[in-house]
Amino acid sequence: MTKQVNIAILGFGTVGSGVYQVLTEGKESIKHRELVNIDVRRILVRDLVTERNIGLAPIETFATDFADIINDPEISIVVECMGGTVPAKDYILGALAAGKTVVTSNKEVLAKHWPEFERQAKATGAGLYFEATAGGGVPIIRTLLDSMQGNNITHLMGIVNGTTNYILTKMADEGRPYAEVLAEAQKLGYAEANPSADVDGWDSVYKLSILASIAFHARVNIDDIYREGISLVSAEDIAVAKKLGYTIKLLAIGKKMNNNLEVRVHPTMLHNSHPLANVSGVFNGIFLTGDAVDDIMLYGRGAGKLPTASAIVSDIIYASNVAEHRYMTFVNEFDAPQWLVHQKDWLSGYFIRLTASDELGSLSKIAGVLGDSGVSVHSVMQFNENAHKNTAELVFITDTARELSVQSALARLRALSCVISVDSVMRVEE
Amino acid sequence: MTKQVNIAILGFGTVGSGVYQVLTEGKESIKHRELVNIDVRRILVRDLVTERNIGLAPIETFATDFADIINDPEISIVVECMGGTVPAKDYILGALAAGKTVVTSNKEVLAKHWPEFERQAKATGAGLYFEATAGGGVPIIRTLLDSMQGNNITHLMGIVNGTTNYILTKMADEGRPYAEVLAEAQKLGYAEANPSADVDGWDSVYKLSILASIAFHARVNIDDIYREGISLVSAEDIAVAKKLGYTIKLLAIGKKMNNNLEVRVHPTMLHNSHPLANVSGVFNGIFLTGDAVDDIMLYGRGAGKLPTASAIVSDIIYASNVAEHRYMTFVNEFDAPQWLVHQKDWLSGYFIRLTASDELGSLSKIAGVLGDSGVSVHSVMQFNENAHKNTAELVFITDTARELSVQSALARLRALSCVISVDSVMRVEE
Repeated sequence: MTKQVNIAILGFGTVGSGVYQVLTEGKESIKHRELVNIDVRRILVRDLVTERNIGLAPIETFATDFADIINDPEISIVVECMGGTVPAKDYILGALAAGKTVVTSNKEVLAKHWPEFERQAKATGAGLYFEATAGGGVPIIRTLLDSMQGNNITHLMGIVNGTTNYILTKMADEGRPYAEVLAEAQKLGYAEANPSADVDGWDSVYKLSILASIAFHARVNIDDIYREGISLVSAEDIAVAKKLGYTIKLLAIGKKMNNNLEVRVHPTMLHNSHPLANVSGVFNGIFLTGDAVDDIMLYGRGAGKLPTASAIVSDIIYASNVAEHRYMTFVNEFDAPQWLVHQKDWLSGYFIRLTASDELGSLSKIAGVLGDSGVSVHSVMQFNENAHKNTAELVFITDTARELSVQSALARLRALSCVISVDSVMRVEE
Repeated sequence: MTKQVNIAILGFGTVGSGVYQVLTEGKESIKHRELVNIDVRRILVRDLVTERNIGLAPIETFATDFADIINDPEISIVVECMGGTVPAKDYILGALAAGKTVVTSNKEVLAKHWPEFERQAKATGAGLYFEATAGGGVPIIRTLLDSMQGNNITHLMGIVNGTTNYILTKMADEGRPYAEVLAEAQKLGYAEANPSADVDGWDSVYKLSILASIAFHARVNIDDIYREGISLVSAEDIAVAKKLGYTIKLLAIGKKMNNNLEVRVHPTMLHNSHPLANVSGVFNGIFLTGDAVDDIMLYGRGAGKLPTASAIVSDIIYASNVAEHRYMTFVNEFDAPQWLVHQKDWLSGYFIRLTASDELGSLSKIAGVLGDSGVSVHSVMQFNENAHKNTAELVFITDTARELSVQSALARLRALSCVISVDSVMRVEE
């Protein structure tokens, strides 16, 4: 009754060694509960001498030549935990071509090369599993695939990058500026020496590409996703947001209206009553709306050795026990082609913070420009902290407006003599 | 390639008609995406004349005799949405005995008769699916079964009853007493005319029995679960909790330490920073801790026509596409028998609110009794609202203590001359 499954792990850093640990420590209970005996037959590393985790597994398990794995007919599942696209892409394609199922945690290579992987997997009947590519230990992919099939999903909003959420949470809790908190996060190992993949939003873009493709049954390329990172979020924005009952989060947003999709990653103001507003520190949260299930949210650790390993191991077991591997069916191949909403034509609320001269009629002029541009004001606050300079800080929150209208209003506001500076513009989601 | 699946729906009230609606409206996209064409062949109702939803489906679909379903060889899945145990139990057993897979949303019948259903299902190879029995649209069962297999789950805490959460949220938001809010909830249709199943915690007990059995791989009977409803939660408790930064929730709690289990349903104080503290109104939230994945939470609508239908439809599709149905493997059948922690021997924090005479030495006497009983005080607050009566309201929050020690301390406190009344005792979870 118990099935024997032999696997190879590609890469033995944090994630790869975590998978080894979970499979080793949980071996007997997995065998008992799931009726599958999983043996790690091979671990591929670049170099036996420099591999820091070499002591964690028997030396004979390690290999440095991918051919040892591809040519081993007893290995049925290849777990790719290397990250990056080279050589991960070729290894994944090679494994699939050899009829081996691939389980990967590599969001970058999947977001960039998914269609090639799918074609290759279909050709040999191999499986392709990637729960760990988005949300770490949070079972968001399986939820989309196996628990929401009766739904037309219309909204997806996620905090999918722990590093940026940690930085924004620290900035909010301690009132400190971005650069200082980033430097501290780097010192603590929560941010990379080169933090661009996280703070510039690339990691969130990869994950949104994967999640939106599944949720909307339409292949969403990374180039289609608008991207804005957190480096321009100021301590002032956060402080003002707090006063108004809002929190600033880096959100990955996908929306479907009729047959139109919009997909974007940017800092976003969320009212504190929104469930995502309470997702703090390195935690991730993904909020979905389906026409049947209504709102649901999944919350958990989006990264880390064991949470990521948890997702990978669940994929290995799932892949071992499934009768037939299944493949994506994207609407693009079936329905009328999806129209991707132009990046500047979204509908959103907007937060506009500006410094105006504290003179009679300023507010009315500014409100007039917004109104003329088709941007309706939801609320306005005036802060007089700079009263001694004869300037006032004005904060507007708009009703839902078109991004193009807001941008045109901003151009006109900047030209007003009473507007000293437009200090910040941020999108607001409900 | 597309599989034809014919189903019967038992019961055509809110849930049954919701399933029909989701399957009908989603028929083409489900066929395209999931490669299964689902036809509702039969709908069982008690009486064609009095059935209020009769107009929603073609009249020839309806049946009043279960034999019409059980004897139809083309029906492979029976969806039970009747609720209660009679005749649901017999119908489920009958369908399984006939080799038909059962999908149910009926928590009561499953919690009470699960072992019989499992045995019958195994005997004929039929499937038994019940995502909708806990958490409504929230995919908590699939998450436990298919996404956490590599984990040893140690904690499960859930807000699994929307009615009581609605009442507690209203009480907290508006400072109103229990009886008044319950009456309003009944008027609005959020609570039943006979509210006992919800407010006395039975519904939560059924759900905890199901969730804890899966999470801990050990069959947890409803009789093993300690139960306390919300009817004694006072507006005063909620007000004091609020002052201290806590929220009161009816929690379903399961904990596993070594091989010991504890399972209980009772009002619980949670610090506002806990993710479950922000689960408001009719929403449900289930918080889990696994040794690999660490903390995760799932949030969504725990009841309602379409959210429940969403879960049922996902089960129907899952059951249609699976190669082989799988059954529970409980540790009780495998490991050393599980020892269920005695109901009064839990470890928990405690909130104790009492009225004492406002005299010198009261506080020291009370603290002395707690200390002597092995109950260490985490924090104490004195409110002097009754200063004119020469009494003081004292609130203690204890460190983790044994329930037995706290109960014995309370008996001794009640005997102290300076203690006028012990007004409230509530468990506190972190």
